[in-house]
Amino acid sequence: MKAPIIVPADILAARVQQKLTEAGADAASSAHTVRALMHASLHGVDSHGVRLVGYYYGPLRSGEINGRPQIKIRKTAAATAMLDGDNGLGHHTSYEAMKLAVDLARDSGIGAVGATGSSHFGAAGAYALAAAEAGMIGLATTNAESLVTLFGGRDAFHGTNPLAVAAPVPDEKPWLMDMATSSIPFNRVLLYRSLGHPLPEAIAVDGDGNPVRDPAEATTLMPMGGADYGFKGAALAGLATLLSAVLTGATLDHDLASLGASTPAKPANLGHFFIAIDPARFAGVTEMALGMRRYLDALRASPQRDGAPPAMAPGDREWQVVEQRLRDGVPVDPDTAQVLGF
Amino acid sequence: MKAPIIVPADILAARVQQKLTEAGADAASSAHTVRALMHASLHGVDSHGVRLVGYYYGPLRSGEINGRPQIKIRKTAAATAMLDGDNGLGHHTSYEAMKLAVDLARDSGIGAVGATGSSHFGAAGAYALAAAEAGMIGLATTNAESLVTLFGGRDAFHGTNPLAVAAPVPDEKPWLMDMATSSIPFNRVLLYRSLGHPLPEAIAVDGDGNPVRDPAEATTLMPMGGADYGFKGAALAGLATLLSAVLTGATLDHDLASLGASTPAKPANLGHFFIAIDPARFAGVTEMALGMRRYLDALRASPQRDGAPPAMAPGDREWQVVEQRLRDGVPVDPDTAQVLGF
Repeated sequence: MKAPIIVPADILAARVQQKLTEAGADAASSAHTVRALMHASLHGVDSHGVRLVGYYYGPLRSGEINGRPQIKIRKTAAATAMLDGDNGLGHHTSYEAMKLAVDLARDSGIGAVGATGSSHFGAAGAYALAAAEAGMIGLATTNAESLVTLFGGRDAFHGTNPLAVAAPVPDEKPWLMDMATSSIPFNRVLLYRSLGHPLPEAIAVDGDGNPVRDPAEATTLMPMGGADYGFKGAALAGLATLLSAVLTGATLDHDLASLGASTPAKPANLGHFFIAIDPARFAGVTEMALGMRRYLDALRASPQRDGAPPAMAPGDREWQVVEQRLRDGVPVDPDTAQVLGF
Repeated sequence: MKAPIIVPADILAARVQQKLTEAGADAASSAHTVRALMHASLHGVDSHGVRLVGYYYGPLRSGEINGRPQIKIRKTAAATAMLDGDNGLGHHTSYEAMKLAVDLARDSGIGAVGATGSSHFGAAGAYALAAAEAGMIGLATTNAESLVTLFGGRDAFHGTNPLAVAAPVPDEKPWLMDMATSSIPFNRVLLYRSLGHPLPEAIAVDGDGNPVRDPAEATTLMPMGGADYGFKGAALAGLATLLSAVLTGATLDHDLASLGASTPAKPANLGHFFIAIDPARFAGVTEMALGMRRYLDALRASPQRDGAPPAMAPGDREWQVVEQRLRDGVPVDPDTAQVLGF
């Protein structure tokens, strides 16, 4: 493997914006997509970061993803809405949907928005975080193309269907959980394969559905919880599908076309689901802030077993990466560097 | 171990009701508690079923749990409310809170209720199910007394903090997920101990925080995800605490007194959180029903690896147990049989 190059964040963001514009994305679509991809790249989630520009470029050019969508909003009750992304970039759909959920929550205490007519939205945490930055607890989830077996399953059924939640924390960055409901993403398997390292136990299966350690034999991921408790991961993946696709009327995981296989006439119709919750309507903003402080102080002071790193809250590690990458620059893999013209 | 006795469900429910009344619970409190305990006993979740009568009896008699609570509701916005359980039985608090969430969702599309001043609520799935029976998607969660380490942790930090979600399914029982965020509950460790069986890998630690297989050495549970991916289980446990206690202003897991150690003057102040979502305000009831049908048919037809049982949706196994126990009776362990006067 060739080494990545290191690029300052602002220069990288500008180049991604330029590339998306060149592919036909309008100002709002490209701005939201840059924000989401830079979120992932800065947080160290490189699989969902700027490398995806190469993945979206062709479909934007061909019209498979609509670079100039007319988003349609249908408010359905005081606290709920449906949003049709008009087959645009999933990041644009999703920031708009979470903004709407936050507005609904501001009025009604909680807001929920189901999005359809969307496409791959990158890292779910980006949208949960947008709610937390507005002072809300945010939840974001999506279904995705089948890549993960059921518990004991042979074939791919659910996508890696992430669950992301973020919450404001006084005087520091938000609490931020963003997890796939498989143990690892599939491109981690590809990484093990290229390194020639054996896989951890019970994270992937071969074509017969048997767990394998040899990454060359792995065809499909197992749900989080592995050989004994994978029914929990499968249930959480199902929850993502239930909210994102069944409740909204979007396409189910196992019916989703891969990007490059859908067409403008028959778009992917991926679904997402967003919730925002206003702390002011529960214990209150101050009381919640005090509780968060007590909770995080206790968590970070909780003793670990000998040799384990200090206890961390969800997001703690990623916010350290953000700080380091804002200071030192963001690693960009050679293929993506070429796409971006570095 | 002595064998359980088998009791018809209606006789068992009547005896539980009688025992709770004898302990001082009023009609509404005991009716809701019977419903929740019978839910768990019928679904095969015996740890959270009628055996808990013995656990609540003393605290009800002493006033540590208030058998005649005056529940106070404060509606805070169109879709949200806080509910103070007046230190009553958690089951009563929780059915009332979910009923309120369903009412809010009927008007506003989604409803969320934070409950404080509560106590142990048994199986979270009981309340999620109540929403599904009203045609809604329901979510129920709670925090609980510390029993589970953080990722790499030595000491108990979070409770086994369950996440339960239920959703209506046309012509069959609801989709029903009800999971602890540890791999197993602690009384499963006690069962392994009494059977002299080694524990599965990476589900419990000794006093130094090292994973152990000998159930006699296990002091604390590990979060779901085990040795490699326990950060995911710990994050989900944290999510339960965040919604149930931080957002509501209830007591944090590590500050919760055990039942028997709280007092009427200084009650446990356990917190729960409930959401109901009305499908009519998203794709619509009919469209959601069709999607659920397509999803479940595909799931149950999904091929399994050789030797694995057929693919099941969350709740499928438990609904089979309900059918069998309604027909053949409910097993009651000898200690509980004695408490109930069988």
